[in-house]
Formats: sequence, C-alpha cells, structure tokens
Amino acid sequence: MKNVRHLSTGLLAPMLFLVAAALPVLAQTPDPLPSWNDGAAKAAIVEFVKATTTQGGPQFVPPAERVATFDQDGTLWVERPIYAQVTYCLERVPSVVRLKPELAKVEPFKTVLSGNREAIAKLSEQDLIKILAATLTGMPVEKFQAEVKAWLATAKDPRWKRLYTELTYLPMQEVLKYLRANGYKTYIVTGGGQDFVRVYSEATYGIPPEQVVGTAGATRFGYDKDGRPTLIKEPKLLLNDDKAGKPEGIHLMIGRRPNAAFGNSIGDQQMLEYTQAGDGARLQVLVLHDDAQREYAYGPATGLPASRIGTFTQALYDEAKARGWTVISMRNDWKRIFSFEP
Amino acid sequence: MKNVRHLSTGLLAPMLFLVAAALPVLAQTPDPLPSWNDGAAKAAIVEFVKATTTQGGPQFVPPAERVATFDQDGTLWVERPIYAQVTYCLERVPSVVRLKPELAKVEPFKTVLSGNREAIAKLSEQDLIKILAATLTGMPVEKFQAEVKAWLATAKDPRWKRLYTELTYLPMQEVLKYLRANGYKTYIVTGGGQDFVRVYSEATYGIPPEQVVGTAGATRFGYDKDGRPTLIKEPKLLLNDDKAGKPEGIHLMIGRRPNAAFGNSIGDQQMLEYTQAGDGARLQVLVLHDDAQREYAYGPATGLPASRIGTFTQALYDEAKARGWTVISMRNDWKRIFSFEP
Repeated sequence: MKNVRHLSTGLLAPMLFLVAAALPVLAQTPDPLPSWNDGAAKAAIVEFVKATTTQGGPQFVPPAERVATFDQDGTLWVERPIYAQVTYCLERVPSVVRLKPELAKVEPFKTVLSGNREAIAKLSEQDLIKILAATLTGMPVEKFQAEVKAWLATAKDPRWKRLYTELTYLPMQEVLKYLRANGYKTYIVTGGGQDFVRVYSEATYGIPPEQVVGTAGATRFGYDKDGRPTLIKEPKLLLNDDKAGKPEGIHLMIGRRPNAAFGNSIGDQQMLEYTQAGDGARLQVLVLHDDAQREYAYGPATGLPASRIGTFTQALYDEAKARGWTVISMRNDWKRIFSFEP
Repeated sequence: MKNVRHLSTGLLAPMLFLVAAALPVLAQTPDPLPSWNDGAAKAAIVEFVKATTTQGGPQFVPPAERVATFDQDGTLWVERPIYAQVTYCLERVPSVVRLKPELAKVEPFKTVLSGNREAIAKLSEQDLIKILAATLTGMPVEKFQAEVKAWLATAKDPRWKRLYTELTYLPMQEVLKYLRANGYKTYIVTGGGQDFVRVYSEATYGIPPEQVVGTAGATRFGYDKDGRPTLIKEPKLLLNDDKAGKPEGIHLMIGRRPNAAFGNSIGDQQMLEYTQAGDGARLQVLVLHDDAQREYAYGPATGLPASRIGTFTQALYDEAKARGWTVISMRNDWKRIFSFEP
C-alpha cells in the first residue's frame, strides 16, 4: 500500500479499476472437487461442508468434533471382480500349505490349490472364513504387515494391470482432502481387515492407521523365544465391522457419531442411518456403480443384479431416496474416475 | 534491519552489544515442566523428547508416528482410596435397584445398599463385575454419557473434598502438554471403562475420546420405539484393557507401537515392555506413590504393601531398575502435585 501513495492520482484511478476487476478472480477459491461434474451430489457435499464450518452459523460444528467415515471397497477403490484382500488370502494359500502340508488334502484349501476359478468363485462364506483365518493369523503383527506390504508392491488388478493402491477413485480422494482441509478427521470404516487396510491407508488415502476401523481379530501378547515382547494375530473375531457392526465399531474405536458417512452397499446402511440420527447438518452418501465402460455396473438402475460383492439392493436405493441420502452416479457425477486416466 | 542501516556507526556498536547480551535469554525457552524438580526423571523425559524430535538426529521420529500412552488411575490422577469409576458404580446402585426392586435382596447389591463400608470394601472381584455390569450397561450410550457427566459435576473425593477431575497431577498435565507441543499424540490407555473416561478426557486432559483406549464392552445397534437408530451398552466384554490387554488394546485401537508409555502398576508392565521393544529412543516411566503427606504412599520403597488398588510390586520395581525404566518419586520429583495447591 505504501507505494500506492506515491503514484500520481492520474495513475491511481485506472489502477484501482484493474484491482477491482481482478477481485472476483482473487476471491474465487479453486474448485476443491475438480473431477466432479456439477450436480446434486457435488452440491450436497459442498453445502454440507459450508454449513458445518461456517463460524457463527446455525449448523457449525467445532473442529475437534468433525468426523467423516468412509467405507473402502467400492467406495474409495474398486471392489470387483473380487476384494483385493480376498485375492491376497487366496494367493497366500500355497505358502501356508508349505508350512502345513496336511492342509493340501483338506477343503477349502484343496480347491484353492487346484486353481479352478469357477470352483473358487463358488466357495461358501464358511470356506472363505477358514481361508482368512489360515492366511491372516498365527503370526506376529509385524510379520503380517511386512507380507501385506510386499504383496501390495507387486500384485496387480486383472483388468487394469495396475497396483490395487492405484485403483482408488480420484473424486473420492478429492472429497477426503476437501474434508480434511476443512478440519474433518477422515476415517475408513471397512468390512475388510483392519490390520490389512492399515498397512497402506496412510500412503494411499492420507488416513493414518489409528483412523482405520475394520473387521478386527484378537491379538495375544507374549514373549518370543528370545524373550522379546510380541503380539501374535489370533483367529478370534473381536469386531465384525459390517452392517450393524459399523456403528458399533465407530463407537468402540472413535467414540463420536460421524457428521458425514460414505458407503456403497447394504454393509453401510446402518452407518448411514446412525450418522443421520445425530443433530445438525448430516451427510449420507452412497456410490452407485453404473458405469460399465469406465468401471463396473451393478445394483439398482443398472439392470444388473446386486451380487455378493458390493450389494447395493433396490431396497437400499429406496431407503436412500426416502431419507434424502445422496446417491452418486459414477457415470454422471464423475468426470474422471482414476488419476491415471485422462 | 532496514532501520539499523540508518544508525550511525557510533550507535551501532553498543546496540549490537546489547543484542548479543540479550541472546542467551531470548534463546532460553521457558521450562516446559515447571512443577518438576531437576533430577533423573525430568531429565529422562526432556532427553527423550529432544532425541525423537531433533530433525536429522539418529533417533528422529516423524511427527505422524509420535505416540505416547498414559495409564490414568494413579498415573494421571488419584486412585485412592478407591477408583472414581468404582465409586460411581456403587453410588448408582440405588437407582438401578429402583428400576429392578428384586435386586435389593440379592448380593452383592444387598451389601452395597447396606452402606456398610467394611463389608463393601471386602466385595470380591466377581461381585464388583456384577455391580459394574448392572450400572454401566443396558442403556443407550448417550444416556450413559449424560449420567456420568452429571455425576462428575458434583461428586467429590472424600479427602480433598474436590471434584475428581480436579485431582489430576499437575506435573503429568505438564508432560501431556509438553509432548503434544512436540508433535506427540497423547493417548490414555486405562483399565478403567473406555466409555466412562471418554466423557471427561477432553476437558480434563485435552485428550479427545478417540484417543482413549480402555476396558470396553460391546454395544448393540438397533432402533428405539420411535424407529431411531440407537446403540445400547451390552454386558459383554470386548477388551479387558489391563496387563497383557494393554498392548493388545493399543494394537487394536491405535495400530502403532508407542514411543513412550507411562504407568504406575503391574497393570502397565506389559505396555511398558511392548513400548521398549521397539526401535530407536523409547521412554518407559512409572509413578511411585511415596508421598503420604501430599498424596498417598504405597508400594516399594514406602514400607507399605502394594494392595488391590495401584499394585506397584517389588518385582515391578526390580524390573524397572533392571530395564532402565524411569521411576518417578512423587515426593522428590514433583514440586507441586495439584494445581489447586501452592
């Protein structure tokens, strides 16, 4: 400002005109959600953030209380044709059998070792639980973390031939950053394994391990043969973080009701209901996979049935409409889906 | 600096002298632990913080990974003559019996209602668990939170006639602030009830509910008579956050090994062992209650036996010495114990 005083008044008037013309541009902050098309979904997210962060506004939420929870599979990254973690467990079966050769003749391990994809796809939930227990437990937590890290560094999705951690949705990454820039703590609340997701959540989403709530097994504290304290992963379920287990897990791990919750299936229904039941501005969002070209299409409004992976039923769609939840159409609401695509 | 150039050299020399003389004073930051006497305990804490936060140093810990865990009862506040939460449960018995009159004739409720202090003090652990289950569960989480909050606003410690939340140790409050000022996330890791401590942890210690790990029961998601989603506290134990349960709870709730851990009893032994087993600089601290005048004296070096509340055994003392843990003498290391005292 000091220099302005030295300008002749003859120069000052046009200068002020230029400054005034530039002001709207300066005042306009860059779009925090550039990969989103304008529409109801984007508007709902932006309006929620403005309502809860406008100091003195009727729906202002103090920064310490701002919590947003996100399902992972199908909400933050691709869940088809099969959850990354299930692929991990199936691929781990041979090394588990190497240590315990007697498993080779026992189901469901026999089927997995056969490599018969159709038979593997037909394994029951009970079979899958046996595979998960055998491949995810019985080792120190650090060994498990190292194994998952090594697998993620090379394993690739069959369709895009890319690392699983590259298959996150760019528009959702923008929402995570936008919420954090506005004082929200962002949490993953997943039916997947808590210890599994914690290995990559910080590098992949900027979400630290302590902000990952997931299906969790017990660990057992003890001492290894050298007397070093160690935690061994046990095949005992502590928290089944799915459906009703999601609000229960949120209470256990966070102790606050979320202000916003994002999901994509009946596994997220209760989390969204619980979120909405709080006071003040609330945001409930479901991702609808209706883009077979750029990703996948399944669930209501796609003509394709909901299936075991990513169950977005017609009933959930109806509940979303009845309760005023936001449904994201991947096809219409997202300009870009992946950061590696133009 | 601009003004300096306009000063004559005659004035500059004395000015620079004054600036140089002032530098040591300016460089000296205020003591972050003013309620501590100089000694080994204070030095160990300050050295640990310097080692782990000195950029480029061999023991530097990135800010996102800095975790410090604190037991509560006997470490952050007074635990004698009886844990605040147990007092809460005993005082809640009459209102529980009003709702379920049949309990009045059943033990241990009959003994509690008798008001016979000696008999109450002799109740078994099994009896206490029955009282805790009856007084802490069977209600929506919000109702429980409101009841605890109301109780804490009026209930007073029998010796100091002050609110329980005033009976925190000022030197430990300073350590919490000092660690946070140096990028540490501070957690409470308590054998007490997670839901109970979360009610006051933020106001009392600046520790938000999501950074309280404690003994935790299940909740059950459902709908109340008006169809509102609700979480009911269930009498089912999920995490017994004591002894081996502390490192197990830390893994479940935080997913990182602490860099520093503070406790005062055998309930904290495994947490300290687990902390020390990590790489780099580690800090393990035990509070020894050896000041009968200003607080209480119990455990080793006091001549008084360890008892059911606050069990600092001779074996734990020997382990602390053998492993190089820091033992705080309340009598010698703390200048002041409570903020309300001179």
